[in-house]
Amino acid sequence: MNRGNLLYEGKAKRVYQTDREDQVWVEYKDDATAFNGEKKAVIDRKGEWNNRISAVFFHYLKERGVANHFIRLLSSREQLVKHVSIIPLEVVVRNRAAGTLVKRLGLEAGQVFPQPVVEFYYKDDALGDPLINEDHIRLLNLATPERVEEMKQTALTVNQLLTELLEQHQITLVDFKLEFGVDASGQLLLADEISPDTCRFWDSRTGKVMDKDRFRRDLGDVEEAYQEIWNRLGGEAHV
Amino acid sequence: MNRGNLLYEGKAKRVYQTDREDQVWVEYKDDATAFNGEKKAVIDRKGEWNNRISAVFFHYLKERGVANHFIRLLSSREQLVKHVSIIPLEVVVRNRAAGTLVKRLGLEAGQVFPQPVVEFYYKDDALGDPLINEDHIRLLNLATPERVEEMKQTALTVNQLLTELLEQHQITLVDFKLEFGVDASGQLLLADEISPDTCRFWDSRTGKVMDKDRFRRDLGDVEEAYQEIWNRLGGEAHV
Repeated sequence: MNRGNLLYEGKAKRVYQTDREDQVWVEYKDDATAFNGEKKAVIDRKGEWNNRISAVFFHYLKERGVANHFIRLLSSREQLVKHVSIIPLEVVVRNRAAGTLVKRLGLEAGQVFPQPVVEFYYKDDALGDPLINEDHIRLLNLATPERVEEMKQTALTVNQLLTELLEQHQITLVDFKLEFGVDASGQLLLADEISPDTCRFWDSRTGKVMDKDRFRRDLGDVEEAYQEIWNRLGGEAHV
Repeated sequence: MNRGNLLYEGKAKRVYQTDREDQVWVEYKDDATAFNGEKKAVIDRKGEWNNRISAVFFHYLKERGVANHFIRLLSSREQLVKHVSIIPLEVVVRNRAAGTLVKRLGLEAGQVFPQPVVEFYYKDDALGDPLINEDHIRLLNLATPERVEEMKQTALTVNQLLTELLEQHQITLVDFKLEFGVDASGQLLLADEISPDTCRFWDSRTGKVMDKDRFRRDLGDVEEAYQEIWNRLGGEAHV
């Protein structure tokens, strides 16, 4: 497999062509951004930990029947994935109150929800990725109602599976964001990344924040927290 | 029927007890507010037009099977309604792009939607009445999923019926906000008001704004526009 032309550069990843039209080469960057790009930094080795952690999660989910884009790791910060057309929706699952939802609904931070809450956000930087409902998704032709339901059910399955895995390592899955894509045959595939950049992880015993909130909230030791997630998940055992 | 103690004073109405526990006396005020209370004014006779226009709409809807709180007019600015416990949700139906949705989704103002869009907002001044989805409604215990569906279907029926009525008078129903309540027997009743304060009305031929946007956007002749809605709906013929 050879790396071809750059197809797309996002805030946290670069995507390159490969010899095959149905596969792309993803490189995870050390760039960190928050608050819709207003806060920026470079976090040494972040790209490596996110690449490795995403690979573990995608592999684990695929083995349990959740179709996703991951094929294999290419290097410490690169992975090979299926080429999909990304649906411009962020699907968020929340098990506890944190982040923007605390302000939106006036909740107590950390409050445990009796059932997970699923939300859809419209991926549009210029609009600030607004929360939208299923009528808005239909209006904007982002996905059919059946596809919306499929994404919602998949997100809830991912929540259950990741919660189980993480609990074994004393990590609480507070909330996370997923993105989905559609391949050339029309199949829905979980895509993008699943990492401390896109999830909230709290140490189950101490409540210590082990995710991007360390960067957002200037808590320090960002890289160390990311590496600890990787270590707890088995670290070198996966290499 | 006698007017008893003041039960509640809102931005646009006062609600009083009556001799009967299952009925309340509503007085429409001339006070106008916008942008979550930041803009304020008194618009002479607004209370009268909103009282009269609401009565026409509620009477029309009841005759067509939409259960609501309206009983009868008491005076030019007062009406008798059933006592309900208000569900803290604003149910919005949109037929065209206007107001906050234009900014939220980056739409062209006035754009006609192929199907109406229904939204739920959490009635909470301190939070700025945020848009919420059905998972948030369940989380906050605001209504059961069945009640949410009942409100949504009723709102779509109201949209169809009011659109038909208004078209006869060359008025385009752009969007509107409904509130629902539950009576002592647990029945869902359409409540609050339906008026130029809670709907967007455009002249079907000229596009002239005939609603609260005249106040929000300083277009002038607010009272005249409200009165014209009342006149077009039959005005004195209802008295």
